[in-house]
Amino acid sequence: GFKTSDGIAFNLIPNGKRRITVRRFSGKKYVDIREFYDDDSGELKPGKKGIMLNEEQFTALLGMADNIRNALQKI
Amino acid sequence: GFKTSDGIAFNLIPNGKRRITVRRFSGKKYVDIREFYDDDSGELKPGKKGIMLNEEQFTALLGMADNIRNALQKI
Repeated sequence: GFKTSDGIAFNLIPNGKRRITVRRFSGKKYVDIREFYDDDSGELKPGKKGIMLNEEQFTALLGMADNIRNALQKI
Repeated sequence: GFKTSDGIAFNLIPNGKRRITVRRFSGKKYVDIREFYDDDSGELKPGKKGIMLNEEQFTALLGMADNIRNALQKI
């Protein structure tokens, strides 16, 4: 991960246009899975596509990982 | 998971207003992490907040799980 102004980020794709950012917001911790775009200055900015999961929801996601993988094979 | 018109869904929160849906779209498979809302008829409909990850991105997310958990503790 790398530090950003927001928190600690992880690139989901090599160009950094999809990221997971671990951040604090109003005293709580979140895992934000989000698309980024180049703004006019060439900087990457967070876009509208994304969802901010709280810790509990992120833990729930990880707990479903095997079932999700099974669904991916079945579908 | 349960079948929906879209694919196979998993509730991230008990009321079903945040879901992970495994779906096919244009012949490819995706993991859609999304918020749902009650429409006028009382049905749950997909909302704008969310992101659709392809299989590769979902696999990348799972591969980062330990690092994300560490970041959650550090931040």
